Amino acid sequence: MQPEDNLQVQDAGEAGVLEVIGRIVARPDPDVLVGIGDDAAVLLSRADRRLVATTDIQVEGVHFRSDLAGPGDVGWKALAVNLSDVAAVGGIPRHALVSLAVPPTLPLRWIEDFYRGLEELGTLFGVTVVGGNLATIPGPIVADVMVLGEVEADLFLRRTGARVGDRLVVTGVLGASAAALMAWERGVQGAGIERLLAVHRRPLPRVHEGRVAARSRWATAMIDLSDGLSTDLLRLCDANHLGVRLDGAAVPVDPALRDLAARLHLTSLDLALRGGEDYELLIAADPQHAEELAQRIQEEVGTPATVIGELVSPEEGCIVQREGRRLPLESLGWDHFRRSAAPGSRKRPS
Amino acid sequence: MQPEDNLQVQDAGEAGVLEVIGRIVARPDPDVLVGIGDDAAVLLSRADRRLVATTDIQVEGVHFRSDLAGPGDVGWKALAVNLSDVAAVGGIPRHALVSLAVPPTLPLRWIEDFYRGLEELGTLFGVTVVGGNLATIPGPIVADVMVLGEVEADLFLRRTGARVGDRLVVTGVLGASAAALMAWERGVQGAGIERLLAVHRRPLPRVHEGRVAARSRWATAMIDLSDGLSTDLLRLCDANHLGVRLDGAAVPVDPALRDLAARLHLTSLDLALRGGEDYELLIAADPQHAEELAQRIQEEVGTPATVIGELVSPEEGCIVQREGRRLPLESLGWDHFRRSAAPGSRKRPS
Repeated sequence: MQPEDNLQVQDAGEAGVLEVIGRIVARPDPDVLVGIGDDAAVLLSRADRRLVATTDIQVEGVHFRSDLAGPGDVGWKALAVNLSDVAAVGGIPRHALVSLAVPPTLPLRWIEDFYRGLEELGTLFGVTVVGGNLATIPGPIVADVMVLGEVEADLFLRRTGARVGDRLVVTGVLGASAAALMAWERGVQGAGIERLLAVHRRPLPRVHEGRVAARSRWATAMIDLSDGLSTDLLRLCDANHLGVRLDGAAVPVDPALRDLAARLHLTSLDLALRGGEDYELLIAADPQHAEELAQRIQEEVGTPATVIGELVSPEEGCIVQREGRRLPLESLGWDHFRRSAAPGSRKRPS
Repeated sequence: MQPEDNLQVQDAGEAGVLEVIGRIVARPDPDVLVGIGDDAAVLLSRADRRLVATTDIQVEGVHFRSDLAGPGDVGWKALAVNLSDVAAVGGIPRHALVSLAVPPTLPLRWIEDFYRGLEELGTLFGVTVVGGNLATIPGPIVADVMVLGEVEADLFLRRTGARVGDRLVVTGVLGASAAALMAWERGVQGAGIERLLAVHRRPLPRVHEGRVAARSRWATAMIDLSDGLSTDLLRLCDANHLGVRLDGAAVPVDPALRDLAARLHLTSLDLALRGGEDYELLIAADPQHAEELAQRIQEEVGTPATVIGELVSPEEGCIVQREGRRLPLESLGWDHFRRSAAPGSRKRPS
């Protein structure tokens, strides 16, 4: 243990904290003309690209709990959720700005580990920290990360653009993050839970998968799954004024869920629908090419992708086919503000 | 009073909150290709420009106090502090992303008024809100704003670039914000305090002044005064490895301070040096043209600008000439983390 391991941020002062951060995030990037330490970052931008910008705030006790996630996990995830949003428009993330509000008595080490986790993920995706902001807060830790990226002028996807008949493709497998959290909260032990918890703590944003979708030109709309398949799918339907027929049997779930779900008195599909924090991509695609798009994602990136349903006219409504029955698809995921969550829905980490 | 005046954010739910925000910030902007409501914003960027990005976090009880500043003031200032950072590199602010974490029981009206205040300032400077993020927090309100802007490839200024002999030019008058806060905290009444409080609540970022400085090509370095002249000037000296000779008699202070300072048992210069939250610009400029730059700012924008000192070799140190004496210039402003502030320094709003 080094001497500074016991320092609190109030001992180090702003300059001391900035020095620690500078040591971690100072990676050379030729596109950063003015970086950390000045009033604002000045970045090179390219003529044939469009700028992508997104932000996501993480609050201790709401989005993460310090007994479940270490500071490195929090840093990783604070960046990951933003990279996922850039992925959802088909963009390439490039730069990040990090706002961090912490109590003065927080160990300096916490900030160091937070930035290390964030930087680990940033290095994986070529994302450089170019600015940020530190503040004290008489309350929970708040980490707000903003990510800038770029996308070709004619390639970006949005939530709208889907048409009747488009198939829905989802990347990866769903439910792991929610299942891990629920198991952890209820003290359920078992093989595989540690791996699921690792998925929960350090989700991998689907940047490359989003690029394949955008470049294919078969995708018509895209959204990332942050609040649960049911909630985000209904958002996609709302945005396009369409209904949906979701094939419950086709929804890909993490294999470890099958055993775990029973012990949680749920089905794997329940976990996938209510889930949340999967950070997979949900893609609407031309029916002629949806299967081909799924294969291409699998081949080019190595991530499975699956056709799970079809967008239909709004009159047909939003339904999920499960166990031979057609049930209304309800939003069972997360509402950041709602007093009482939907019946049976999980609570956010808190 | 309208029926929804009593709604809490937890009654409205996320969709209700977003609807209120959408009504306020939905201004047409041809450069916004994908705006609020999608995963990430997609923005037009220009070939001959460089991208400017900055972020600043405001915490209730630390950066603002709800008994002194209304939600509209908080929204205004959360944007203003970022526009000031864009101004400090000579940039033109264009777009904003807003992260807001609030307790579930907060009146919905608070968020509405926050966005109205932010939008009022945004309209003045042509800045459009293109994204954001809402979260609940079991603690103080946190508002984190990121601003994107642009600057010509060959015009941007930074904190470094100043040379021995460069003169220091400051825009506007200093100390008003700090004096207002101090008077308010100590219950000091008097003519003019309301006006000073208005300056504290709704500072005007010096965007146009920064543009004049950048376009003049006489400025060599620039920084905005957010933490007090003494602190920010020493930062400028540090960044350039230079000393400074500050002419205390030349430092422009708000006229209302002269009377108020005495009642606070301070001098106007003390308030200007310790101050903070002035959001004026401090510009290092070629000695041949510093006076001309000050005049040009006055003529083109209508804001006074004053030469207040000279950058010297580091061996000469950092001194302030006051009342015929040469005193060491000390950092008397704000450190976001330091346990005990510098002797006699004000506390941040707290």
